[in-house]
Amino acid sequence: MKRIGFIGLGIMGEPMAVNLLNAGYELSVYNRTRAKAEELVKKGANRCDFPADVARQSEVVFTMLTADTAVEEVVFGNRGILEGASAGLIVIDCSTISPNTSQKIYEALGKIGVDMLDAPVTGSKPQATEGNLTFMVGGKKEVYETCLPLFETMGKAAYYMGESGAGSYTKLANNTMGAINLLSLVEGMMIATKAGVDPELFVKVVSGGGARSGMTDNKSPKIINRDFQPDFATALMYKDMKLATQLAEQLNIPVPVLSTVKQLLQMATANGYGFEDVSSVVKCYEEWADIVVQKR
Amino acid sequence: MKRIGFIGLGIMGEPMAVNLLNAGYELSVYNRTRAKAEELVKKGANRCDFPADVARQSEVVFTMLTADTAVEEVVFGNRGILEGASAGLIVIDCSTISPNTSQKIYEALGKIGVDMLDAPVTGSKPQATEGNLTFMVGGKKEVYETCLPLFETMGKAAYYMGESGAGSYTKLANNTMGAINLLSLVEGMMIATKAGVDPELFVKVVSGGGARSGMTDNKSPKIINRDFQPDFATALMYKDMKLATQLAEQLNIPVPVLSTVKQLLQMATANGYGFEDVSSVVKCYEEWADIVVQKR
Repeated sequence: MKRIGFIGLGIMGEPMAVNLLNAGYELSVYNRTRAKAEELVKKGANRCDFPADVARQSEVVFTMLTADTAVEEVVFGNRGILEGASAGLIVIDCSTISPNTSQKIYEALGKIGVDMLDAPVTGSKPQATEGNLTFMVGGKKEVYETCLPLFETMGKAAYYMGESGAGSYTKLANNTMGAINLLSLVEGMMIATKAGVDPELFVKVVSGGGARSGMTDNKSPKIINRDFQPDFATALMYKDMKLATQLAEQLNIPVPVLSTVKQLLQMATANGYGFEDVSSVVKCYEEWADIVVQKR
Repeated sequence: MKRIGFIGLGIMGEPMAVNLLNAGYELSVYNRTRAKAEELVKKGANRCDFPADVARQSEVVFTMLTADTAVEEVVFGNRGILEGASAGLIVIDCSTISPNTSQKIYEALGKIGVDMLDAPVTGSKPQATEGNLTFMVGGKKEVYETCLPLFETMGKAAYYMGESGAGSYTKLANNTMGAINLLSLVEGMMIATKAGVDPELFVKVVSGGGARSGMTDNKSPKIINRDFQPDFATALMYKDMKLATQLAEQLNIPVPVLSTVKQLLQMATANGYGFEDVSSVVKCYEEWADIVVQKR
């Protein structure tokens, strides 16, 4: 495999594509906003006018988009991947979308001999840039194995989770835990701070036990320093929690905590924090409790 | 300080008292169930018939009990600490109780010249045995400093959190985070498992990011291996969540996630899992969703 396509050159997709280019792959790229491809073209990528053209010129096509509708448009839309694809092509979708959509695309592409993997990632912009992403992959195992060198170019690990959709299942369950862990931090910090305890000292003390989490490590400094520049936007986490609750409903699992957390992210989005970092949900609590969790 | 008292020789108190004895302190002990003092008496501790006697014979008295009522009984009850205490005594309560109760005892003892610290701990039986507890201390700073050698005998760290009650505030906020992080693990594992993903692989994959937590590390092996022997019992965590929600109410902070988690622990207790490990709350979900999260 030499000729790789990349569709969706946003915060995540662009650095991922750069890593493929730097590793010596021939890269064809497409982005709805043409200007976002400029940097990659300067570095030697071939810009295509439509997703169909990317499919025609590639052996493997990656997509990295923000929502189900965008992925469906790129695959099924006018001059989409389906139009340009021929048997033997592999499509790898790294977006966080509904497993139902993943499986629908898998089946549609399968009918014309095109394989598809759902391969969402953990990690945000810094990990994408450093090639330190973790891929969670669903689809045929032999296709996953064929594509391992590509995953290894962009990530530190790529786990095979099971059949088509299993990557998306894993990602949604993973983000469910991330969102709940964040609200755990927020409610804990609110109680401690309003009770008069220094929030920074509080986090230091509790980080030794069960209260420790990836969110405590990553988000407590942002909250205490009032830095709500998005590493991961509230609106995106809210979208993921909607997908996760739909999945839980479909699987017949009551998820009272996830449902509550989803509503809190909805409130944060409604309050205008959708484009800020997801840790900005603390600002809802701060308004309710009339106190700010900040450096003393 | 040479003469130390210890009241409450349960799962936590006994190994803590042993560490004081091993460090060369003269130890007077009391436990409601007399037999629980046997081991310590064999090792050289002096058994007292009443808390008042412990207070008479000690410069510092530790209490390590399971609930507010037990602590109040030991302090204010017939032949309690208050009866035997004289000016200059220091009382250190390591129980997890309401900060209101901590402050009430602090004030009552203060009137007769007795100082009090609220000093709850993180860590369970293994940490207590190894002298690896973390103390979160509220009260007068100079009293905390005087008692540091004692904390260092039983723990790896003792943080001064602020005035009387601050230790209890910190502990309740800490356990709030622990309980929410546990439910995060449970709901994430339920979704992944019912979607067909191997729970052990799932935990391995998500432990790299925001989904990581102290609870993921400690409780996922217990759940997967169906080992619900209590490291920390459901009923005790439920008690702590009742105290934490009361505190949040008093502080005027809405805590929707904590409230939901409290109710789930109530359900687990009502279902008969009160004396099992708190991770047994997963069994409620397993009954609802008709699937078991276990080793494949």
